[in-house]
Amino acid sequence: MKLLYSPLSPFVRKVMIVAKELGLDGRIETVPAATNPSVPNPEIAKHNPLMKIPALVTDEGIDLVESKVIVQYLDSLGGNKLIPAAGKARWKALRMEAIADGLADAGILVRYELAMRPAALQWKEWISGQLAKVGNALDQLEREASDLEGPLNVGHVAVVCACNWLEFRNVLPDARKTRPKLFAWVDRMNKERPSFGSTMPK
Amino acid sequence: MKLLYSPLSPFVRKVMIVAKELGLDGRIETVPAATNPSVPNPEIAKHNPLMKIPALVTDEGIDLVESKVIVQYLDSLGGNKLIPAAGKARWKALRMEAIADGLADAGILVRYELAMRPAALQWKEWISGQLAKVGNALDQLEREASDLEGPLNVGHVAVVCACNWLEFRNVLPDARKTRPKLFAWVDRMNKERPSFGSTMPK
Repeated sequence: MKLLYSPLSPFVRKVMIVAKELGLDGRIETVPAATNPSVPNPEIAKHNPLMKIPALVTDEGIDLVESKVIVQYLDSLGGNKLIPAAGKARWKALRMEAIADGLADAGILVRYELAMRPAALQWKEWISGQLAKVGNALDQLEREASDLEGPLNVGHVAVVCACNWLEFRNVLPDARKTRPKLFAWVDRMNKERPSFGSTMPK
Repeated sequence: MKLLYSPLSPFVRKVMIVAKELGLDGRIETVPAATNPSVPNPEIAKHNPLMKIPALVTDEGIDLVESKVIVQYLDSLGGNKLIPAAGKARWKALRMEAIADGLADAGILVRYELAMRPAALQWKEWISGQLAKVGNALDQLEREASDLEGPLNVGHVAVVCACNWLEFRNVLPDARKTRPKLFAWVDRMNKERPSFGSTMPK
Protein backbone atom coordinates (compact mmCIF):
# COMPACT_ATOMS: atom_id res chain seq x y z
CA MET A 1 0.00 0.00 0.00
CA LYS A 2 1.05 3.60 -0.54
CA LEU A 3 0.14 6.39 1.86
CA LEU A 4 0.29 10.07 0.85
CA TYR A 5 1.96 11.38 3.96
CA SER A 6 3.08 14.31 6.08
CA PRO A 7 4.44 13.82 9.62
CA LEU A 8 2.58 16.96 10.79
CA SER A 9 -0.99 16.09 9.79
CA PRO A 10 -3.10 14.80 12.71
CA PHE A 11 -5.14 12.69 10.28
CA VAL A 12 -2.06 11.07 8.73
CA ARG A 13 -0.77 10.38 12.23
CA LYS A 14 -4.07 8.66 13.11
CA VAL A 15 -3.61 6.36 10.12
CA MET A 16 0.04 5.65 11.02
CA ILE A 17 -0.80 4.81 14.66
CA VAL A 18 -3.63 2.51 13.56
CA ALA A 19 -1.28 0.80 11.07
CA LYS A 20 1.38 0.31 13.75
CA GLU A 21 -1.08 -0.98 16.34
CA LEU A 22 -2.37 -3.52 13.79
CA GLY A 23 1.12 -4.55 12.65
CA LEU A 24 0.45 -3.27 9.13
CA ASP A 25 3.01 -0.47 8.98
CA GLY A 26 5.59 -2.67 7.26
CA ARG A 27 3.19 -3.05 4.33
CA ILE A 28 2.78 0.71 3.87
CA GLU A 29 5.13 2.83 1.78
CA THR A 30 4.87 6.49 2.79
CA VAL A 31 5.03 9.07 0.00
CA PRO A 32 5.70 12.66 1.17
CA ALA A 33 2.91 14.98 0.05
CA ALA A 34 2.61 18.70 0.79
CA THR A 35 -0.88 20.18 0.91
CA ASN A 36 -1.86 23.84 0.70
CA PRO A 37 -5.56 24.69 0.44
CA SER A 38 -4.98 27.64 -1.88
CA VAL A 39 -2.39 25.99 -4.16
CA PRO A 40 -3.65 22.89 -5.99
CA ASN A 41 -1.21 19.94 -5.98
CA PRO A 42 -1.70 17.81 -9.11
CA GLU A 43 0.39 14.94 -7.70
CA ILE A 44 -2.05 14.50 -4.81
CA ALA A 45 -5.00 14.99 -7.18
CA LYS A 46 -3.98 11.80 -9.01
CA HIS A 47 -5.09 9.85 -5.94
CA ASN A 48 -7.49 12.24 -4.21
CA PRO A 49 -9.47 14.83 -6.19
CA LEU A 50 -9.89 16.79 -2.95
CA MET A 51 -6.08 17.18 -2.78
CA LYS A 52 -5.98 16.32 0.90
CA ILE A 53 -3.98 13.82 2.88
CA PRO A 54 -4.03 11.09 4.01
CA ALA A 55 -4.89 9.15 0.87
CA LEU A 56 -4.16 5.43 0.71
CA VAL A 57 -3.60 3.47 -2.49
CA THR A 58 -4.55 -0.11 -1.67
CA ASP A 59 -2.79 -3.15 -3.16
CA GLU A 60 -5.87 -3.63 -5.36
CA GLY A 61 -5.36 -0.09 -6.67
CA ILE A 62 -8.30 1.61 -4.94
CA ASP A 63 -7.52 5.22 -3.98
CA LEU A 64 -9.06 5.53 -0.52
CA VAL A 65 -9.61 9.05 0.79
CA GLU A 66 -10.55 10.49 4.21
CA SER A 67 -8.90 9.20 7.35
CA LYS A 68 -12.10 7.67 8.80
CA VAL A 69 -12.47 5.48 5.71
CA ILE A 70 -8.78 4.58 5.64
CA VAL A 71 -8.70 3.46 9.28
CA GLN A 72 -11.84 1.36 8.77
CA TYR A 73 -10.08 -0.29 5.83
CA LEU A 74 -6.87 -0.94 7.78
CA ASP A 75 -8.85 -2.29 10.73
CA SER A 76 -10.60 -4.76 8.40
CA LEU A 77 -7.16 -5.91 7.13
CA GLY A 78 -5.68 -6.12 10.61
CA GLY A 79 -8.24 -8.24 12.44
CA ASN A 80 -10.84 -5.66 13.50
CA LYS A 81 -9.04 -4.79 16.71
CA LEU A 82 -9.55 -1.02 16.94
CA ILE A 83 -13.17 -0.54 15.85
CA PRO A 84 -15.73 -2.58 17.79
CA ALA A 85 -17.94 -4.50 15.34
CA ALA A 86 -21.32 -3.55 16.78
CA GLY A 87 -23.34 -2.17 19.66
CA LYS A 88 -22.79 0.74 21.97
CA ALA A 89 -19.00 0.25 21.98
CA ARG A 90 -18.87 0.77 18.21
CA TRP A 91 -20.93 3.97 18.20
CA LYS A 92 -19.12 5.46 21.16
CA ALA A 93 -15.74 4.82 19.50
CA LEU A 94 -16.81 6.26 16.13
CA ARG A 95 -18.45 9.21 17.90
CA MET A 96 -15.25 9.96 19.80
CA GLU A 97 -13.26 9.75 16.56
CA ALA A 98 -15.67 12.17 14.87
CA ILE A 99 -15.47 14.67 17.74
CA ALA A 100 -11.67 14.54 17.75
CA ASP A 101 -11.45 14.83 13.96
CA GLY A 102 -13.88 17.77 14.03
CA LEU A 103 -11.76 19.41 16.73
CA ALA A 104 -8.69 19.06 14.50
CA ASP A 105 -10.62 20.32 11.44
CA ALA A 106 -11.68 23.48 13.32
CA GLY A 107 -8.14 23.96 14.60
CA ILE A 108 -6.76 23.63 11.07
CA LEU A 109 -9.17 26.30 9.84
CA VAL A 110 -7.86 28.61 12.58
CA ARG A 111 -4.30 27.88 11.51
CA TYR A 112 -5.09 28.54 7.85
CA GLU A 113 -6.61 31.85 8.87
CA LEU A 114 -3.68 32.96 11.03
CA ALA A 115 -0.68 31.40 9.29
CA MET A 116 -1.64 31.42 5.59
CA ARG A 117 -4.25 34.09 4.90
CA PRO A 118 -2.85 37.62 4.51
CA ALA A 119 -3.20 39.46 7.83
CA ALA A 120 -5.37 42.19 6.32
CA LEU A 121 -7.99 39.59 5.30
CA GLN A 122 -8.34 37.82 8.64
CA TRP A 123 -11.80 37.77 10.22
CA LYS A 124 -11.97 37.74 14.02
CA GLU A 125 -15.48 36.26 14.23
CA TRP A 126 -14.43 33.29 12.10
CA ILE A 127 -11.45 32.59 14.36
CA SER A 128 -13.50 32.89 17.55
CA GLY A 129 -16.26 30.71 16.09
CA GLN A 130 -13.83 27.94 15.19
CA LEU A 131 -12.03 28.23 18.54
CA ALA A 132 -15.39 27.83 20.29
CA LYS A 133 -15.75 24.46 18.53
CA VAL A 134 -12.23 23.47 19.61
CA GLY A 135 -12.83 24.50 23.21
CA ASN A 136 -16.25 22.82 23.39
CA ALA A 137 -14.85 19.57 22.01
CA LEU A 138 -11.99 19.57 24.54
CA ASP A 139 -14.48 20.25 27.36
CA GLN A 140 -16.67 17.38 26.20
CA LEU A 141 -13.70 14.98 26.10
CA GLU A 142 -12.68 16.12 29.59
CA ARG A 143 -16.20 15.43 30.89
CA GLU A 144 -16.09 11.98 29.29
CA ALA A 145 -12.57 11.17 30.51
CA SER A 146 -13.72 7.79 31.86
CA ASP A 147 -14.32 6.70 28.24
CA LEU A 148 -10.61 7.19 27.56
CA GLU A 149 -9.84 4.08 29.60
CA GLY A 150 -10.39 0.51 28.43
CA PRO A 151 -9.19 -1.32 25.31
CA LEU A 152 -7.62 1.00 22.73
CA ASN A 153 -10.00 2.04 19.97
CA VAL A 154 -9.89 4.41 17.03
CA GLY A 155 -11.56 7.16 19.05
CA HIS A 156 -8.66 7.15 21.52
CA VAL A 157 -6.17 7.38 18.66
CA ALA A 158 -8.00 10.34 17.13
CA VAL A 159 -8.14 12.18 20.48
CA VAL A 160 -4.39 11.91 21.03
CA CYS A 161 -3.67 13.07 17.47
CA ALA A 162 -6.00 16.07 17.74
CA CYS A 163 -4.75 17.17 21.18
CA ASN A 164 -1.05 16.85 20.30
CA TRP A 165 -1.52 18.69 17.01
CA LEU A 166 -3.38 21.49 18.77
CA GLU A 167 -0.53 21.99 21.23
CA PHE A 168 2.15 21.57 18.55
CA ARG A 169 0.60 24.44 16.55
CA ASN A 170 -0.36 26.36 19.69
CA VAL A 171 -3.82 26.96 18.28
CA LEU A 172 -5.51 27.38 21.66
CA PRO A 173 -3.11 28.64 24.34
CA ASP A 174 -3.74 27.06 27.76
CA ALA A 175 -5.74 24.25 26.14
CA ARG A 176 -4.61 21.80 28.82
CA LYS A 177 -5.08 24.12 31.79
CA THR A 178 -8.79 23.43 32.23
CA ARG A 179 -8.72 19.84 30.93
CA PRO A 180 -6.30 18.09 33.30
CA LYS A 181 -7.72 14.56 32.99
CA LEU A 182 -7.74 14.64 29.20
CA PHE A 183 -4.18 15.86 28.78
CA ALA A 184 -2.75 13.65 31.56
CA TRP A 185 -4.19 10.70 29.65
CA VAL A 186 -2.78 11.99 26.32
CA ASP A 187 0.68 12.32 27.89
CA ARG A 188 0.47 8.82 29.35
CA MET A 189 -0.54 7.30 26.01
CA ASN A 190 2.48 8.88 24.33
CA LYS A 191 4.78 7.48 27.00
CA GLU A 192 3.28 4.02 27.15
CA ARG A 193 2.67 3.19 23.48
CA PRO A 194 5.52 3.34 20.92
CA SER A 195 2.96 3.81 18.12
CA PHE A 196 2.04 7.14 19.70
CA GLY A 197 5.42 8.25 21.00
CA SER A 198 7.23 7.57 17.72
CA THR A 199 4.75 9.60 15.65
CA MET A 200 4.58 12.75 17.82
CA PRO A 201 4.66 15.87 15.60
CA LYS A 202 7.86 17.89 15.99
CA MET B 1 -34.46 9.21 17.70
CA LYS B 2 -33.98 12.97 17.36
CA LEU B 3 -32.16 14.57 14.43
CA LEU B 4 -30.83 18.13 14.57
CA TYR B 5 -31.99 19.24 11.17
CA SER B 6 -31.97 21.83 8.41
CA PRO B 7 -33.57 21.13 5.01
CA LEU B 8 -30.70 22.94 3.25
CA SER B 9 -27.69 20.98 4.59
CA PRO B 10 -26.39 18.36 2.14
CA PHE B 11 -25.24 16.22 5.07
CA VAL B 12 -28.63 16.33 6.80
CA ARG B 13 -30.25 15.42 3.48
CA LYS B 14 -27.93 12.42 3.18
CA VAL B 15 -29.11 11.21 6.59
CA MET B 16 -32.78 11.81 5.70
CA ILE B 17 -32.52 9.90 2.40
CA VAL B 18 -30.76 6.99 4.11
CA ALA B 19 -33.47 6.94 6.81
CA LYS B 20 -36.24 6.95 4.19
CA GLU B 21 -34.60 4.24 2.06
CA LEU B 22 -34.29 2.06 5.18
CA GLY B 23 -37.85 2.75 6.36
CA LEU B 24 -36.57 4.43 9.53
CA ASP B 25 -37.82 7.97 8.92
CA GLY B 26 -40.97 7.37 10.97
CA ARG B 27 -38.77 6.77 14.02
CA ILE B 28 -36.90 10.07 13.64
CA GLU B 29 -38.13 13.35 15.08
CA THR B 30 -36.51 16.29 13.29
CA VAL B 31 -35.51 19.29 15.40
CA PRO B 32 -34.79 22.49 13.43
CA ALA B 33 -31.25 23.73 14.12
CA ALA B 34 -29.57 26.75 12.58
CA THR B 35 -25.79 26.70 12.28
CA ASN B 36 -23.46 29.62 11.71
CA PRO B 37 -19.71 29.00 11.95
CA SER B 38 -18.98 32.36 13.53
CA VAL B 39 -21.91 32.44 15.98
CA PRO B 40 -21.87 29.59 18.53
CA ASN B 41 -25.26 27.90 19.08
CA PRO B 42 -25.50 26.51 22.62
CA GLU B 43 -28.61 24.45 21.80
CA ILE B 44 -26.68 22.44 19.20
CA ALA B 45 -23.66 22.26 21.53
CA LYS B 46 -25.75 20.22 23.99
CA HIS B 47 -25.65 17.35 21.49
CA ASN B 48 -22.60 18.17 19.39
CA PRO B 49 -19.66 20.15 20.82
CA LEU B 50 -18.65 21.01 17.24
CA MET B 51 -22.01 22.80 16.81
CA LYS B 52 -22.61 21.25 13.41
CA ILE B 53 -25.51 19.35 11.95
CA PRO B 54 -26.58 16.64 11.47
CA ALA B 55 -26.40 15.27 15.01
CA LEU B 56 -28.53 12.28 15.98
CA VAL B 57 -29.66 11.47 19.51
CA THR B 58 -30.23 7.72 19.57
CA ASP B 59 -32.96 6.04 21.61
CA GLU B 60 -30.21 4.90 23.99
CA GLY B 61 -29.23 8.55 24.47
CA ILE B 62 -25.96 8.53 22.52
CA ASP B 63 -25.30 11.83 20.73
CA LEU B 64 -23.93 10.73 17.37
CA VAL B 65 -22.11 13.36 15.33
CA GLU B 66 -20.85 13.51 11.73
CA SER B 67 -23.02 12.30 8.88
CA LYS B 68 -20.74 9.36 7.96
CA VAL B 69 -21.10 7.95 11.47
CA ILE B 70 -24.85 8.60 11.59
CA VAL B 71 -25.53 6.82 8.29
CA GLN B 72 -23.44 3.83 9.41
CA TYR B 73 -25.56 3.70 12.56
CA LEU B 74 -28.85 3.95 10.66
CA ASP B 75 -27.70 1.30 8.18
CA SER B 76 -26.96 -1.06 11.08
CA LEU B 77 -30.50 -0.48 12.43
CA GLY B 78 -32.11 -0.86 9.01
CA GLY B 79 -30.67 -4.15 7.82
CA ASN B 80 -27.33 -3.10 6.32
CA LYS B 81 -28.78 -2.35 2.92
CA LEU B 82 -26.85 0.77 1.88
CA ILE B 83 -23.29 0.02 3.01
CA PRO B 84 -21.82 -3.23 1.69
CA ALA B 85 -20.43 -5.27 4.60
CA ALA B 86 -17.00 -6.05 3.14
CA GLY B 87 -14.74 -6.26 0.12
CA LYS B 88 -14.22 -3.96 -2.82
CA ALA B 89 -17.91 -2.93 -2.89
CA ARG B 90 -17.63 -1.57 0.66
CA TRP B 91 -14.50 0.48 0.06
CA LYS B 92 -15.71 1.86 -3.24
CA ALA B 93 -19.00 2.98 -1.64
CA LEU B 94 -17.30 4.60 1.36
CA ARG B 95 -14.72 6.20 -0.95
CA MET B 96 -17.46 7.69 -3.12
CA GLU B 97 -19.22 9.01 0.00
CA ALA B 98 -15.98 10.61 1.21
CA ILE B 99 -15.31 12.28 -2.16
CA ALA B 100 -18.87 13.64 -2.32
CA ASP B 101 -18.78 14.83 1.30
CA GLY B 102 -15.40 16.49 0.68
CA LEU B 103 -16.83 18.17 -2.42
CA ALA B 104 -19.68 19.57 -0.31
CA ASP B 105 -17.27 20.63 2.46
CA ALA B 106 -15.15 22.59 -0.02
CA GLY B 107 -18.27 24.14 -1.54
CA ILE B 108 -19.52 25.16 1.90
CA LEU B 109 -16.19 26.89 2.62
CA VAL B 110 -16.64 28.86 -0.63
CA ARG B 111 -20.14 29.82 0.39
CA TYR B 112 -19.00 30.92 3.86
CA GLU B 113 -16.34 33.07 2.19
CA LEU B 114 -18.70 34.71 -0.30
CA ALA B 115 -21.99 34.88 1.61
CA MET B 116 -20.93 35.37 5.24
CA ARG B 117 -17.44 36.88 5.43
CA PRO B 118 -17.31 40.67 4.96
CA ALA B 119 -16.43 41.42 1.31
CA ALA B 120 -13.29 43.35 2.27
CA LEU B 121 -11.87 40.24 3.98
CA GLN B 122 -12.39 37.76 1.13
CA TRP B 123 -9.31 35.98 -0.23
CA LYS B 124 -9.35 35.05 -3.92
CA GLU B 125 -6.72 32.31 -3.61
CA TRP B 126 -8.75 30.55 -0.91
CA ILE B 127 -11.85 30.58 -3.10
CA SER B 128 -10.00 29.34 -6.18
CA GLY B 129 -8.25 26.63 -4.13
CA GLN B 130 -11.53 25.31 -2.74
CA LEU B 131 -13.23 25.53 -6.15
CA ALA B 132 -10.37 23.46 -7.61
CA LYS B 133 -11.28 20.71 -5.12
CA VAL B 134 -14.95 20.96 -6.11
CA GLY B 135 -14.16 20.84 -9.83
CA ASN B 136 -11.69 17.94 -9.46
CA ALA B 137 -14.18 15.92 -7.44
CA LEU B 138 -16.93 16.47 -10.04
CA ASP B 139 -14.52 15.47 -12.83
CA GLN B 140 -13.56 12.30 -10.94
CA LEU B 141 -17.23 11.34 -10.44
CA GLU B 142 -17.88 11.99 -14.15
CA ARG B 143 -14.97 9.70 -15.09
CA GLU B 144 -16.35 7.03 -12.76
CA ALA B 145 -19.95 7.40 -13.92
CA SER B 146 -20.26 3.63 -14.43
CA ASP B 147 -19.98 3.24 -10.63
CA LEU B 148 -23.18 5.28 -10.25
CA GLU B 149 -25.20 2.35 -11.57
CA GLY B 150 -26.01 -0.79 -9.60
CA PRO B 151 -27.71 -1.25 -6.22
CA LEU B 152 -28.12 2.01 -4.31
CA ASN B 153 -25.39 2.64 -1.74
CA VAL B 154 -24.42 5.45 0.59
CA GLY B 155 -21.92 6.80 -1.93
CA HIS B 156 -24.70 7.37 -4.45
CA VAL B 157 -26.77 9.19 -1.84
CA ALA B 158 -23.85 11.47 -0.94
CA VAL B 159 -23.17 12.31 -4.60
CA VAL B 160 -26.76 13.39 -5.26
CA CYS B 161 -26.79 15.51 -2.09
CA ALA B 162 -23.47 17.21 -2.91
CA CYS B 163 -24.35 17.93 -6.57
CA ASN B 164 -27.84 19.28 -5.82
CA TRP B 165 -26.55 21.47 -3.00
CA LEU B 166 -23.82 22.86 -5.27
CA GLU B 167 -26.35 23.87 -7.89
CA PHE B 168 -28.86 25.13 -5.32
CA ARG B 169 -26.22 27.53 -3.95
CA ASN B 170 -24.73 28.17 -7.40
CA VAL B 171 -21.25 27.66 -5.99
CA LEU B 172 -19.68 26.62 -9.30
CA PRO B 173 -21.53 28.07 -12.31
CA ASP B 174 -21.71 25.65 -15.23
CA ALA B 175 -20.91 22.72 -12.94
CA ARG B 176 -23.02 20.37 -15.03
CA LYS B 177 -21.84 21.59 -18.44
CA THR B 178 -18.71 19.42 -18.55
CA ARG B 179 -20.13 16.53 -16.47
CA PRO B 180 -23.15 15.40 -18.50
CA LYS B 181 -23.21 11.76 -17.34
CA LEU B 182 -22.98 12.67 -13.66
CA PHE B 183 -25.75 15.26 -13.70
CA ALA B 184 -28.05 13.23 -15.96
CA TRP B 185 -27.80 10.45 -13.38
CA VAL B 186 -28.43 12.91 -10.50
CA ASP B 187 -31.55 14.21 -12.26
CA ARG B 188 -32.79 10.68 -12.89
CA MET B 189 -32.33 9.67 -9.24
CA ASN B 190 -34.40 12.65 -8.09
CA LYS B 191 -37.20 11.69 -10.49
CA GLU B 192 -37.17 7.98 -9.78
CA ARG B 193 -36.78 7.84 -6.01
CA PRO B 194 -39.20 9.66 -3.67
CA SER B 195 -36.53 9.70 -0.92
CA PHE B 196 -34.44 11.97 -3.17
CA GLY B 197 -37.17 13.99 -4.85
CA SER B 198 -38.96 14.82 -1.60
CA THR B 199 -35.78 16.13 0.08
CA MET B 200 -34.50 18.38 -2.74
CA PRO B 201 -33.25 21.71 -1.27
CA LYS B 202 -35.42 24.67 -2.27
